[in-house]
Amino acid sequence: MHLVAIGGSDAGISTALRARELDPSVDVTVVVADRYPNFSICGIPYYFSREVQPWQSLAHRTHADLEATGMTLRLDTLATGIDVEGRTLSVRDADGVESTIPYDALMVGTGASPSTAGISGLDRLGPDDGVHLLHSMGDTFALERYLDDHRPESAIIVGAGYVGLEMAEALTVRGLTVTQLQRGPEVLSTLDPELGSLVRAELVHHGVDVVTGTRITSVARDDGRLTVTGTRDGGAFSRSADLVLVVVGVRPNTALLTAAGAATGAGGAVVVDDRMSTGLPHVWAAGDGVVTHHRQLGVTYLPLGTTAHKQGRVAGENAIGGDARFAGSLGTQVVKVFDVVAARTGLRDHEAAAAHLSPHSHTAVADDHKRYYPGATPISIRITGDERDGRLLGAQMVGTRGAEIAKRIDTYATALHHGMSVAALSDLDLSYTPPLGSPWDAVQMASQAWERDVRDFAAAH
Amino acid sequence: MHLVAIGGSDAGISTALRARELDPSVDVTVVVADRYPNFSICGIPYYFSREVQPWQSLAHRTHADLEATGMTLRLDTLATGIDVEGRTLSVRDADGVESTIPYDALMVGTGASPSTAGISGLDRLGPDDGVHLLHSMGDTFALERYLDDHRPESAIIVGAGYVGLEMAEALTVRGLTVTQLQRGPEVLSTLDPELGSLVRAELVHHGVDVVTGTRITSVARDDGRLTVTGTRDGGAFSRSADLVLVVVGVRPNTALLTAAGAATGAGGAVVVDDRMSTGLPHVWAAGDGVVTHHRQLGVTYLPLGTTAHKQGRVAGENAIGGDARFAGSLGTQVVKVFDVVAARTGLRDHEAAAAHLSPHSHTAVADDHKRYYPGATPISIRITGDERDGRLLGAQMVGTRGAEIAKRIDTYATALHHGMSVAALSDLDLSYTPPLGSPWDAVQMASQAWERDVRDFAAAH
Repeated sequence: MHLVAIGGSDAGISTALRARELDPSVDVTVVVADRYPNFSICGIPYYFSREVQPWQSLAHRTHADLEATGMTLRLDTLATGIDVEGRTLSVRDADGVESTIPYDALMVGTGASPSTAGISGLDRLGPDDGVHLLHSMGDTFALERYLDDHRPESAIIVGAGYVGLEMAEALTVRGLTVTQLQRGPEVLSTLDPELGSLVRAELVHHGVDVVTGTRITSVARDDGRLTVTGTRDGGAFSRSADLVLVVVGVRPNTALLTAAGAATGAGGAVVVDDRMSTGLPHVWAAGDGVVTHHRQLGVTYLPLGTTAHKQGRVAGENAIGGDARFAGSLGTQVVKVFDVVAARTGLRDHEAAAAHLSPHSHTAVADDHKRYYPGATPISIRITGDERDGRLLGAQMVGTRGAEIAKRIDTYATALHHGMSVAALSDLDLSYTPPLGSPWDAVQMASQAWERDVRDFAAAH
Repeated sequence: MHLVAIGGSDAGISTALRARELDPSVDVTVVVADRYPNFSICGIPYYFSREVQPWQSLAHRTHADLEATGMTLRLDTLATGIDVEGRTLSVRDADGVESTIPYDALMVGTGASPSTAGISGLDRLGPDDGVHLLHSMGDTFALERYLDDHRPESAIIVGAGYVGLEMAEALTVRGLTVTQLQRGPEVLSTLDPELGSLVRAELVHHGVDVVTGTRITSVARDDGRLTVTGTRDGGAFSRSADLVLVVVGVRPNTALLTAAGAATGAGGAVVVDDRMSTGLPHVWAAGDGVVTHHRQLGVTYLPLGTTAHKQGRVAGENAIGGDARFAGSLGTQVVKVFDVVAARTGLRDHEAAAAHLSPHSHTAVADDHKRYYPGATPISIRITGDERDGRLLGAQMVGTRGAEIAKRIDTYATALHHGMSVAALSDLDLSYTPPLGSPWDAVQMASQAWERDVRDFAAAH
């Protein structure tokens, strides 16, 4: 049995590890386009903030660790074609030499590439011009080299999602003056604006110039100075800096699979079932290149590292004859921005409404632990529940680092996994000690506040 | 409708708040034996460590806050008898004046009293002699007065449960030399010894002299010096100090209800059903004085503040005509001892075996967040699962303060609430960002380690 996994990131490595764990007799080859298998792409901003040094630390596992599991790595090797009938993968190495790899099972984890959001100029300007995307270790080295060589004093970050916010922090820590441009009305558009505004306040507090409602259409370079232009409030908008970083999401890399006959669906990603089968015989796929089964929304496209790990693990088990199922995503996410932590799971109001649910959302503020004990901080918690059947639909939280935001969102995620009602959250036997919580945890205080709000709303109508 | 709640602690106040919340037309009277309604008994150790000052801060709500909800408080009033037929409560005030209070519904939350564990001398020696129990604000003031007046330099704490450990920290912080005596083989006997030993190491690191395997049978006072004696390793044991604090658990206060005809059960506590009915007409009970419905063990006795809050809320709803059910405890607990946090939920090996389950336990160590990001610390996680059907039975964790231990145990508690298998924990969509977690959270790494351990164990047998 020879399993070939394409991709050295979360999906590919998870597939390889799972197959080897369950059956050490399986031969596993991982085909990696660059020299950096199993690097933590989510950790890149902390390399730029210099909290993580050297860059080699970003590897989840070293090359030696990976080979010690019994898998074979083929680095600097590009997968160029799949012969589904012949169960053969064509590859090209760094020297341009082409060859083929026979397989019994293939897992394609080619991931995604940075979106350029239709911004003109990105086709002509690149890292050497001070215009950067950020998605791979190659991008990382290019940006670091530019920072070293050119000592830019100012940066424009186009985009204020997770990576954009983390890079705003990192470049600020590095001493650059940062302007953050966001298309929507508030940063971190994955949260409702009333919670996103708390994240913006933290950015502003640390000197980041945040400009929302800004649609950027082009980047140009003139005399060593970079200028982004677009529109804001219906008028023209432009801003200049020494460095431009565009981080506005990703698009799935699907060419290899579609050329082999695979279909694409949500978000242009490759269609897979919950067993991570592409429908092509013996061809599995996982990670940022495939559609996401969402427990509440059905099939969507929501690429996340945690999901890629889970999908890869499922694919690895099934590729060697198992019958695992991806249980589905809830879109659970958390981000630290300076000393603020923001998290979400499940659906927000408009997402639930679009899914024909009857959402009601309410924001409560509850202390992370008993106020009498030093260091208590308020957590803003926005609960979305279905006002018809009382089911929990989603939760968003913003609070201070140290307030256990990340693991509090996990309680909601676990509750959502089981389709709990908002009211039933009060039945959960959660832990309590005054320095770390309350007899009713903040998670439960917010759900009780939601119940009261629905009751009051019903009484008033 | 007149609801009378006896007891100013968690159960009584929760009952009163819930009744008033659901129906503001209900008259609610709370009969409180002392002058300190709604104080956080769990916070007392932080008063002694001087992290919480003044003592008034320990109130969850002030007297005025409580009265603003529309409830009536009768302080310094002891409930002396229940006329079930006549729906009348007899009380005696601080001046010894007896009177009666008619009720439509009665909730009894008389709580528990400190156990003396059969230690002789405790009947003769009291706070003025330097021998203390600790369960009420009265006990708190007595101990504080003794510390102020006598400036003891050394203390013996008999017991190493939650309060014992927190008081060992508090008195150490106050400058006393503390000896902690524990009957079992390891401190914090609610955890398995391999995890309890991590807590002991933290105590020792901070100068606490921990002596385990020690059975104390008497306390004596001679010439101002207190001596505890007992046995250890089959031989005689004694130790002397300026102060002795006995914190070895509690026993339920049941006299009021048993005199009225209520039955007692597990742990000598009053029997109630999951609606918190005593079976006596219109008489409800909740808190440390009643049996605990445990989701895994059935009826047991496991007094905890979180449980008293939940039971009181259920009683308050039912007393005014509702039909709420206490969903049951999982014994979820957490304690901070200096800079270590220890938590548990569900069952341990021997508890599960006694309940005729087939437990298998395995301890894993996983970082709280990605090791490459500064400040990562290891968490020891012991998973107990059923090796027959793979169900999660319980989890124990010890880690560093700041490692989100309290809210990580909540993920296990929520999973247990739903009867999840250990394997299904890997299906949970938990949050991830490198400074606060891992793509597979520590919670999932430990469950995957348990799965591997079971597989290896099965393969070897």
